[in-house]
Amino acid sequence: MAATSLSIMPSSSASISFLTCRRRISFAPINCLSSSSPSPPATVLSQDDLKKLAALKAVEYVKSGMVLGLGTGSTAAFVVTEIGELLASGKLQDIVGVPTSKRTYEQAKSLGIPLSTLDNHSYLNLAIDGADEVDPDLNLVKGRGGALLREKMVEAASEKFVVVVDETKLVTGLGGSGLAMPVEVVQFCWKYNLTRLQELFREQGCEAKLRLDADGKPYVTDNSNYIVDLYFKMPILDASDAAKEISSFEGVVEHGLFLDMASAVIIAGKDGVSVKAK
Amino acid sequence: MAATSLSIMPSSSASISFLTCRRRISFAPINCLSSSSPSPPATVLSQDDLKKLAALKAVEYVKSGMVLGLGTGSTAAFVVTEIGELLASGKLQDIVGVPTSKRTYEQAKSLGIPLSTLDNHSYLNLAIDGADEVDPDLNLVKGRGGALLREKMVEAASEKFVVVVDETKLVTGLGGSGLAMPVEVVQFCWKYNLTRLQELFREQGCEAKLRLDADGKPYVTDNSNYIVDLYFKMPILDASDAAKEISSFEGVVEHGLFLDMASAVIIAGKDGVSVKAK
Repeated sequence: MAATSLSIMPSSSASISFLTCRRRISFAPINCLSSSSPSPPATVLSQDDLKKLAALKAVEYVKSGMVLGLGTGSTAAFVVTEIGELLASGKLQDIVGVPTSKRTYEQAKSLGIPLSTLDNHSYLNLAIDGADEVDPDLNLVKGRGGALLREKMVEAASEKFVVVVDETKLVTGLGGSGLAMPVEVVQFCWKYNLTRLQELFREQGCEAKLRLDADGKPYVTDNSNYIVDLYFKMPILDASDAAKEISSFEGVVEHGLFLDMASAVIIAGKDGVSVKAK
Repeated sequence: MAATSLSIMPSSSASISFLTCRRRISFAPINCLSSSSPSPPATVLSQDDLKKLAALKAVEYVKSGMVLGLGTGSTAAFVVTEIGELLASGKLQDIVGVPTSKRTYEQAKSLGIPLSTLDNHSYLNLAIDGADEVDPDLNLVKGRGGALLREKMVEAASEKFVVVVDETKLVTGLGGSGLAMPVEVVQFCWKYNLTRLQELFREQGCEAKLRLDADGKPYVTDNSNYIVDLYFKMPILDASDAAKEISSFEGVVEHGLFLDMASAVIIAGKDGVSVKAK
């Protein structure tokens, strides 16, 4: 069954549409979320299953000849795998990928996807990436994977930006998950900036923490910077103002608020895959 | 002869005052710029002599017990040397210096100046630094020495910021010297940002160049970033707008426009030392 075709061009109001199945499936048929699927009864899908469902839907927007931004993270990895398979099978041709991290570069390279950078391709047709939070206006928190700067550079350069998430990422307001909203800062005087960031959001009960790696040392980004993770007790009141304030701090390189960037968000949930477009 | 005492507290209008001599002098007396100086006739002062004159005047604002931002560059080096000498002689006590670069850190340490960072001293009483350009409203271009980010962090944290320059640094509009206005960018896709920066100022005839070191390799800042130098054929029309636009580019870490930051500018010229305060 063909998936419902949805435009991802921006429009004046957000729309939502539920899809009953996806175009291609590599799960066992029992996992297909068709509303008309017969017995046996549907099993419970894992979060990885949901991410893969959304990723497969996103790849439908990829057409031969496109320059593509390749996201970073567990959901984006499913997208990259799928694109690699479609290229290998000849169903897609003449794709150029622009990876958003060293990890994604390595994955895409191993799959034989031709790669480039913004230096050589400053205009991208489409970027696909995951997100950590999605609010009702399709604003995002991204960067828990640590690649926020390169993701924002690549995705801001894309004509369309399709986000793929499972339904656990939906929030009523950014910061509302209680999980990290990352801010990339230079290593120089990171404590000073950590303190300033925490103070900036004192009214939202913000706690700021330096991100550490598995060895307990400061996590270092691909750009040799640190990450300060902000944890909010309540959602950020005005994300646009917050973004401006954070950016105004000297030594802040980038932040994880991705505002007015997503063209569409593909959401996989236990009831199926939905697409929400602006 | 005591130097004229000038407040460096901000006021509603800029004021300028010419001083006829400086408090302490280590040149030969023939170089003293007193308007009443007798023969022999004044010799021509070198640019270094002028920088030193301005630096000596700036150090008059330093009082015992202060936390001081220590700038970077040839003029700031004279300031640091002088502070070191005053500490050694006991004329200054209980000074804590916050250096704005590794170079300044090394110089100040070698002179025995007690040092700290913004992490431990987030409030500074005074910062003293040079500048590459000063416009009539005391807005600055800084960073030709490559330390623009740390300079801006430290100087923005200072209650007062005194700038020391020789008169060759005065311009009618920022960018007007035709020399570099630096922008610190992440290494990732620096060409992409170089192109975007040049395009942003196309109407000002801007040429953007990656800064190279003496070996012809990209110059790397203390923060592991590159510097794109912007050369303007005519001054920037609206520096405030320009600063916002530059900052909005993903991957731009900092820029050399220091707007509304200087409390006072000390200018050494062939006619004497003048102080211009806001």
